[in-house]
Amino acid sequence: MIYLDYAASTPLPKAILETMIPWFCEDFGNPSSSHYQGRKAAKAVERAREIIADKIGAYPSEIVFTSGATESNNLALKGIALARRDKGRHIITSSIEHKCILSICNYLENEGFEITYVEPNKYGEITSASISKVIRDDTIIVSISHVNNELGTTQPIREIGALCFDKGVLFHTDAAQSFCKLDINVDDMYIDLMSVSAHKCYGPKGIGALYIRDLRETKVDPVIHGAGQELGLRGGTLASPLIIGMGEAVSQSGLYIDQVAIGEVRSAFLNELGKYCSYTINGGVSVIPNILNITIQKLDIQSLMRDEELAISQGSACSSMAIDISHVLRAIGLSFEQGEKTLRISLGYGYTPQKAKAAAATLAKHIS
Amino acid sequence: MIYLDYAASTPLPKAILETMIPWFCEDFGNPSSSHYQGRKAAKAVERAREIIADKIGAYPSEIVFTSGATESNNLALKGIALARRDKGRHIITSSIEHKCILSICNYLENEGFEITYVEPNKYGEITSASISKVIRDDTIIVSISHVNNELGTTQPIREIGALCFDKGVLFHTDAAQSFCKLDINVDDMYIDLMSVSAHKCYGPKGIGALYIRDLRETKVDPVIHGAGQELGLRGGTLASPLIIGMGEAVSQSGLYIDQVAIGEVRSAFLNELGKYCSYTINGGVSVIPNILNITIQKLDIQSLMRDEELAISQGSACSSMAIDISHVLRAIGLSFEQGEKTLRISLGYGYTPQKAKAAAATLAKHIS
Repeated sequence: MIYLDYAASTPLPKAILETMIPWFCEDFGNPSSSHYQGRKAAKAVERAREIIADKIGAYPSEIVFTSGATESNNLALKGIALARRDKGRHIITSSIEHKCILSICNYLENEGFEITYVEPNKYGEITSASISKVIRDDTIIVSISHVNNELGTTQPIREIGALCFDKGVLFHTDAAQSFCKLDINVDDMYIDLMSVSAHKCYGPKGIGALYIRDLRETKVDPVIHGAGQELGLRGGTLASPLIIGMGEAVSQSGLYIDQVAIGEVRSAFLNELGKYCSYTINGGVSVIPNILNITIQKLDIQSLMRDEELAISQGSACSSMAIDISHVLRAIGLSFEQGEKTLRISLGYGYTPQKAKAAAATLAKHIS
Repeated sequence: MIYLDYAASTPLPKAILETMIPWFCEDFGNPSSSHYQGRKAAKAVERAREIIADKIGAYPSEIVFTSGATESNNLALKGIALARRDKGRHIITSSIEHKCILSICNYLENEGFEITYVEPNKYGEITSASISKVIRDDTIIVSISHVNNELGTTQPIREIGALCFDKGVLFHTDAAQSFCKLDINVDDMYIDLMSVSAHKCYGPKGIGALYIRDLRETKVDPVIHGAGQELGLRGGTLASPLIIGMGEAVSQSGLYIDQVAIGEVRSAFLNELGKYCSYTINGGVSVIPNILNITIQKLDIQSLMRDEELAISQGSACSSMAIDISHVLRAIGLSFEQGEKTLRISLGYGYTPQKAKAAAATLAKHIS
């Protein structure tokens, strides 16, 4: 099995799993319980919150745990938009956001908000100039993902953040693909809200977080109403084993994530593939090393899809069952024929240049 | 450590954890991916969905996975209310529901819905007659929990369901405390929507489900918008290890849940406690055996709360940090003084009558 889909999900290393097990099986108290077992779990949850906050230059009190980046995106956009609808009803995002952002924006349009979808350039980049052109007095929030999940393109979020700051507009970024991979400091980058996920960076599935600047002073409507957990912003029993696993994954991320090494793996993969065929790399020059979006004109996609040894996505995992080519590939100007021959290859822990060459050779079997 | 708070959360048995580990560490593909790794995870998710559906007499296509019962309650009430607001804006629930239901209803009131809160009788029972009195032509949904989470009182949900069916009103029940403990058949009980959780019945924290009758033909608004997962009703990567663990917990529930045996444990506990003090049992005669809500006049609550060997809740876990007595105890007529001396003791796997006697003797140390 050759797994080239780390951007869809990563494995949970045994060492991280081990740290979670006691919280599943022995210290399983509900973190909201006032007795010793509950307080013990709550303390471990708070330690994980500190680790995550430290990683992005935030305060623990600015972190809300959710079930994952999708829920975080919902809480960020709906939470802010619905709480501030009296201040304005204009939202800016891009046409190449993750489908979940587009789905949330579609919902907000039905609720009376106006959404401007900024188009990327042909490299998949969203420039701050393109945001600047459409920002208005009634814009309440701008949401641009840090790294595009299909192309790997890293957006200039610091410039976009600075622009939003100047205009007094909140800035949200979906950092599901960049968290623990690229350096992020919410102050330096003028980020007001940020969505992160554990299972994209060697943590467990089913847990994520939302950073909200000055949470205690910021009005945000909950998406999941509950019994007062997470400052009333997110109901439901805190999933302590998952939260603790996420904290460990972040804390140990240096062991599993090495973007320099992955850059070498990427080069080895491309060099080897070049021996078999020509290809075009999509997404411009500013791409994250672990994601490679390539169009291979001579690719036999039917043959590749039948290959049970190769796990590769066309587009993102979330939309990989779709029949049409993805909205992202369309937006950067690919035709249906080009899109059909386009793959998102994503690399991760355990890949050496040697292993990457072997993977490229296996992929090359599907080139006609 | 004497843990008497199984209604707040249960441990994950090692045997169930073992079934989850491969899905965390090896077969970690995103269930939405179209490649072999993704399809393998998706197949295991569908198997878990079948197990859960079978347990309640439903079809797998009627089960939506969520992060837990709180999210399920949000999806049930907001999802139905917001999708049907043109048909009516009246909702019926009770004053002794879980705080999360009350919080959702409060939100819906702000959105223009009218909520009628039926009062329980002094035993904590919500009668179908009390619902019948307030049901109206514009009532769109009735939500009554199957088992009250503080008192353990089992509500006559079959009669309430039949009444709703006759009136053409949807019936939702929060079954977090009864799922896998009491027999539930959604058809026999006229249940249209039902919330369940894994971590209350020896499954992992962070996962739950919502049953929705005829889901494909029922209009429900999502709470978490995403990339099309769960028929578009609940976005986010399916947390396959948690879902599979939930399926295993349901499948193996007979090993960990034995309400007859727990009834004997309960009797032994009460007999022993009776040697030290007098007490009143709240919640009427129709209570689930594993939950015991008792008022002990001579209880020294400060001393108990300091005892790190005893894990017991006052009220439910979710509200156990509160200073006032719970809304449930108030609703059945307890005074502040009585409420302060009231405990929710909840029993679970591993308790024998002998062990229960020892627990009662330890509790008795805090009786003045």
